[in-house]
Amino acid sequence: MLVPVIISGGSGSRLWPVSREARPKPFMKIQDGLSLLQSTMLRAAAVPDSNAIVIVTNRDLYFQSKEQLEAISSGMNRAEISFLLEPVGRNTAAAIAMSAFLVQERFGPESILMVLPSDHLIKDQNAFLKLAATAIDVARTGNYVTFGIIPSLPETGYGYIECLGSYSPGKLCDVKRFVEKPDYDRAKRFFESGNYLWNSGIFCFRADAILDSIRKHAREVFDKARESWIATKNDPVNQPHVMYIEKSVFPSIPSISIDYAVMEHVDNIKVMPSEIGWSDIGSWRSMGELVVPDAKGNRLVGDAVLIETTNTYVQSDARVIAVVGVDNLVVIDTPDALLVGHADKVQLVKEVVANLKLSGHEAARWHRTVYRPWGTYTVLEDGQHYKMKRIVVKPRASLSLQMHSHRSEHWVIISGTAEIVNGDKHFTLQRDESTYIPAGCKHRLSNPGDEDLLLIEVQTGEYLGEDDIVRFEDKYGR
Amino acid sequence: MLVPVIISGGSGSRLWPVSREARPKPFMKIQDGLSLLQSTMLRAAAVPDSNAIVIVTNRDLYFQSKEQLEAISSGMNRAEISFLLEPVGRNTAAAIAMSAFLVQERFGPESILMVLPSDHLIKDQNAFLKLAATAIDVARTGNYVTFGIIPSLPETGYGYIECLGSYSPGKLCDVKRFVEKPDYDRAKRFFESGNYLWNSGIFCFRADAILDSIRKHAREVFDKARESWIATKNDPVNQPHVMYIEKSVFPSIPSISIDYAVMEHVDNIKVMPSEIGWSDIGSWRSMGELVVPDAKGNRLVGDAVLIETTNTYVQSDARVIAVVGVDNLVVIDTPDALLVGHADKVQLVKEVVANLKLSGHEAARWHRTVYRPWGTYTVLEDGQHYKMKRIVVKPRASLSLQMHSHRSEHWVIISGTAEIVNGDKHFTLQRDESTYIPAGCKHRLSNPGDEDLLLIEVQTGEYLGEDDIVRFEDKYGR
Repeated sequence: MLVPVIISGGSGSRLWPVSREARPKPFMKIQDGLSLLQSTMLRAAAVPDSNAIVIVTNRDLYFQSKEQLEAISSGMNRAEISFLLEPVGRNTAAAIAMSAFLVQERFGPESILMVLPSDHLIKDQNAFLKLAATAIDVARTGNYVTFGIIPSLPETGYGYIECLGSYSPGKLCDVKRFVEKPDYDRAKRFFESGNYLWNSGIFCFRADAILDSIRKHAREVFDKARESWIATKNDPVNQPHVMYIEKSVFPSIPSISIDYAVMEHVDNIKVMPSEIGWSDIGSWRSMGELVVPDAKGNRLVGDAVLIETTNTYVQSDARVIAVVGVDNLVVIDTPDALLVGHADKVQLVKEVVANLKLSGHEAARWHRTVYRPWGTYTVLEDGQHYKMKRIVVKPRASLSLQMHSHRSEHWVIISGTAEIVNGDKHFTLQRDESTYIPAGCKHRLSNPGDEDLLLIEVQTGEYLGEDDIVRFEDKYGR
Repeated sequence: MLVPVIISGGSGSRLWPVSREARPKPFMKIQDGLSLLQSTMLRAAAVPDSNAIVIVTNRDLYFQSKEQLEAISSGMNRAEISFLLEPVGRNTAAAIAMSAFLVQERFGPESILMVLPSDHLIKDQNAFLKLAATAIDVARTGNYVTFGIIPSLPETGYGYIECLGSYSPGKLCDVKRFVEKPDYDRAKRFFESGNYLWNSGIFCFRADAILDSIRKHAREVFDKARESWIATKNDPVNQPHVMYIEKSVFPSIPSISIDYAVMEHVDNIKVMPSEIGWSDIGSWRSMGELVVPDAKGNRLVGDAVLIETTNTYVQSDARVIAVVGVDNLVVIDTPDALLVGHADKVQLVKEVVANLKLSGHEAARWHRTVYRPWGTYTVLEDGQHYKMKRIVVKPRASLSLQMHSHRSEHWVIISGTAEIVNGDKHFTLQRDESTYIPAGCKHRLSNPGDEDLLLIEVQTGEYLGEDDIVRFEDKYGR
């Protein structure tokens, strides 16, 4: 049995303002309209014999992740997919330990895990799948296989794996050691030596092997993860394919990467030198590099006018962006936040996010569009005593039966069908119809149809905070 | 009789995206929440004995200009104010000729015009008024007086006036010559000589004197302006205080500045060396200079986070703007357009506007908020088959009685009182009430109250263009 394990999450601060805590990097659309997470799901499903997939992510990201999956499920093999939902992120050792317990119990101890981070891009999926087949064969005998990317420049932003001797593409090497992110001079030596590969974070091993090694080399991780796993699987609210990890033990698991916890200490580990079109997309600079430049080195996505400007990456959302007289900039526009930076300094965006968090700024965490289990809402205008939202309700989804004390709401249906509870009336609205819900009136909005329901909500009242809500009934257990 | 003549208009391209053709530079708010036009109106009203004021502007800007005036009229002397509305801009000679005809006819040939451009800032109004009093005295005897600004740097963006000998502040000099914008070396020589002043475009002269000189030195301007004036004053639709200049002769007046047409050729002209806190605000760089910099030389207006950034001007509208790792940039944000530029290259914004015009881009001309005689509307979202607007109707204003063939409209009142005609019903709506106007239904929206009426409009339909409108009755003659 082969089980791809997708690790998805991250704080998203390196690619702010498009990536934010409430919808981080794996959700960013990169290629062909697919997000990194969706590309990873498709990759996992394409690995031969992967009849089951485990997705480890934060519980706050569950509904969004599920939606991503549903959007592409027609293009996927019908694998059995399980979500393991973390209450907090505790790094890769904890996530992999929990996954290994699940896989061992459900599919047997000799089942093979293939760990796939969801925050990088692999352009050549066929090349990856070929290498994966070899890696799986090797893992079957109890060995560890890690994927090393053949470097194209002396990158200082990645960890490296030193091979015992020089590597050639697609030929497994013995691993001499793992090396943390180097400074430029070391990176240059690594790059020129022909012995060093970038550490991709993709691993392959048997469930019993990894659990054994975690027990041996990271005892506290093992003990606590086991305790957490037992509590989680015995929790009666959990279903086999949606498991909320319990909150009392898991958060105390040491936060450590699987590299440090295990991989550096085991000796039966091989590295697969890989040429698979891999990109970490670790900054706006590398994001820009995915766009084909024009003759002046400019890369444009969206509506932009550049005058006397060179080597600049502009990504526009809805606005027209004019850039004049500059070189080597990055300009990233979103509905509520804008980033302008020198391309060589884009790593400083992390400081921006830290700064915004410190001041309690909404844009550190939330987008203008907020994802809910039933769909999304987008605040279009937040005025004095009124607020306007665009609301999208997914097919057969339903908001809670609720009431607001301080605001009334006007709903205008733009497309789709709305099933409405408004006080003691129950009725259906179509496009171009509307209803009014006075403050203090119990109401519910549902989409009984097969397509999205789009409506505009105009709220009026003295107080318009999201916390003015009483929920009487909710199909998402909120 | 002393008549300040305010010249207001301009294409607004140097300060795009805040200034645009449909609402150019004079409407930009600069100080104390006042626009340049309002500051100029207050300045005109403060000139001693100015019991009448003439405002020359484009007819498309009339309602906006009037609104600007009404917003400050409580702080103004009760001067008689007349609008002269140009069908097209024909430069200052034509505008001044028309004003001089008006002033001569209405207030007598010996009345004095004080020409005040509305696109610059004068911080020290008291100093200006003191110099103005002297200038008026001199103009009374038939002489010309122009205001020269004592230069603070060798600016290449302005025209210069050379004095006969060196100047001292507030002491009238004889003018030796007018000089066009110089290159840097000449500007430097001018600046160091102590004989050169910046040409402010502020003039003072008698109506009969200027008309005489225009006749003498720019005969075609004189003849056509006289013909145009006669047709305009005899047009029965014109009222004394709102005169739409006729369209058949005026557009053929040669487009020439009063400097070239007259001032360079007259010999009884004096210049007033002025220290009045004058700023031309000719670019985003000079706009930025009005803001006090922090220790790193950054100037911030609005919500911004700057990391490792120096000497940068950021003006944010509603979004948070993050700037990282740059020096000497300008970032100007508006709801639908954004400018990022090197501070030394901000004059290139003119090319941006030219480029946008060429491609027929709306943002070249229009803001997201559009000004109408009855108030404003702002498109908040323009989606597929729906559009949302925030509409503000001024007190006692009224939209036309109208009908749309392809769209229906939902109106939700946010504040104020709405008088509604909806088919054959006539009713009043207050805050938190709404109405629905189906396609094909005659309707009218009015504000009977003393405060602004604010409402949200949600349009739905297959076609949502502004040209889907049949007007049956309109109090603004549209």
